[in-house]
Amino acid sequence: MNILWVLAHPDERSLNGSLRDSAITALADAGHTVEQSDLYRMAWNPVVTGEDYAHDPDERLQVATASSTALRTGTLAEEIVVEQEKLRRADAVVLQFPLWWFSMPAIMKGWIDRVFVEGFGYGIRRDTGGTRRYGDGLMAGTRAMIVTSMGGSEHTVSPRGINGSLDELLFPIQHGFLWYTGMSVLPPVLVPSADRIGPDEYEHAEKTLHDRLASLFTDDPIPFRHQHGGEYDEKFVLRPEYGAGDSGVRVHRRVAPVRG
Amino acid sequence: MNILWVLAHPDERSLNGSLRDSAITALADAGHTVEQSDLYRMAWNPVVTGEDYAHDPDERLQVATASSTALRTGTLAEEIVVEQEKLRRADAVVLQFPLWWFSMPAIMKGWIDRVFVEGFGYGIRRDTGGTRRYGDGLMAGTRAMIVTSMGGSEHTVSPRGINGSLDELLFPIQHGFLWYTGMSVLPPVLVPSADRIGPDEYEHAEKTLHDRLASLFTDDPIPFRHQHGGEYDEKFVLRPEYGAGDSGVRVHRRVAPVRG
Repeated sequence: MNILWVLAHPDERSLNGSLRDSAITALADAGHTVEQSDLYRMAWNPVVTGEDYAHDPDERLQVATASSTALRTGTLAEEIVVEQEKLRRADAVVLQFPLWWFSMPAIMKGWIDRVFVEGFGYGIRRDTGGTRRYGDGLMAGTRAMIVTSMGGSEHTVSPRGINGSLDELLFPIQHGFLWYTGMSVLPPVLVPSADRIGPDEYEHAEKTLHDRLASLFTDDPIPFRHQHGGEYDEKFVLRPEYGAGDSGVRVHRRVAPVRG
Repeated sequence: MNILWVLAHPDERSLNGSLRDSAITALADAGHTVEQSDLYRMAWNPVVTGEDYAHDPDERLQVATASSTALRTGTLAEEIVVEQEKLRRADAVVLQFPLWWFSMPAIMKGWIDRVFVEGFGYGIRRDTGGTRRYGDGLMAGTRAMIVTSMGGSEHTVSPRGINGSLDELLFPIQHGFLWYTGMSVLPPVLVPSADRIGPDEYEHAEKTLHDRLASLFTDDPIPFRHQHGGEYDEKFVLRPEYGAGDSGVRVHRRVAPVRG
């Protein structure tokens, strides 16, 4: 299979750099093809501007319109097109980053902001006028997984941990980006207490990551709800018979997470 | 009062640009002082690198250590120091951005990543070795509010809307950044259906924003839990007697949100 590995870390000598190198070797040994977007090494520019879309600066910039026009007319910035081609070839996408402020570093957010223009990954359906997203996105058939490290302990992102439960912290990325564009999202790999990691903990993290990669194409994805599965009403609000009367981001997965 | 207004939008002729101009005029008319960080106009660089910390590139970069050392020794990049000084002067901070992928544009994420180094906004306590954060952060006494626009309708970010409830989507920012650094967080101002806004809807959005700004210093903030309020145990997990047996990001506010 073809795997796109996207890394956002400023130093390749870091824990994240070591885990990336180890993972890529293991994937190649297992017969996979690996492509990379090492965003710091590429000096990726994370800032959306009209220049990406050959936009006339005298005209007001509406990002969705300008970007979808540029995609359609083949005038998107070349570096965006290169990333889109990598994504089209990918059977799975791994996003690896240290958790900064409970989200991804800006350089990776800007990879998403710039590469996933309207019409790439999601877009307007010509037949119904609706938006292709949430299971119906254009990346359907591609698997996705987050690999992230954090300084704090695993307790702090447990279901009642002070930083918030990891699944819900990652909801904007896992549901709002990966599932939105149609990717099947596997549970994340977390490397906690990363600032104080010793050889034993490193070996444990490496083994966990290798195990998860070995089942990358067989593990069950998170069962997020499909926008056309009949569970949402015409305003895209979850119908009362689903989600057990609950609310919040967790109602958008079919199986309720374990409480407590 | 002194208000720092941070805007992330690539075009000042946008809805967000118009609302910003209108808000700033209203604040000035009310006798406030307004400082701005218009990140696109400043051509803000959102990418954390060792250069921010005068870091020796031959040494492995550990961001937390390098950044806190640079803060302490006065070797932080000048553009970071300028933003920190604006923040020190601020009685309130407004973050205004279009919701891109259910989060902020990369340019603003990188303003947070670069400006809030360890020791600014949060940091290690010399007395206990604990971390000053979550109500105990160094920005305590400062108010904060998000102003954000989205293309989708308000229904889609309602408590059971397909995109996820707005409060929980914004939890990584409102709790994980603003409250982490000690700021008192006011409920966000949302401008929905922003791609199809007409004169009446604009007037409504402008009035809502002005009303919220008029009570910026008197509205009740979101009642997030203080890390030293006795509600968390020694592992920073919410004690069983709080949060009504519930889990997820919403247990970290003292008053449960309305369900349904």
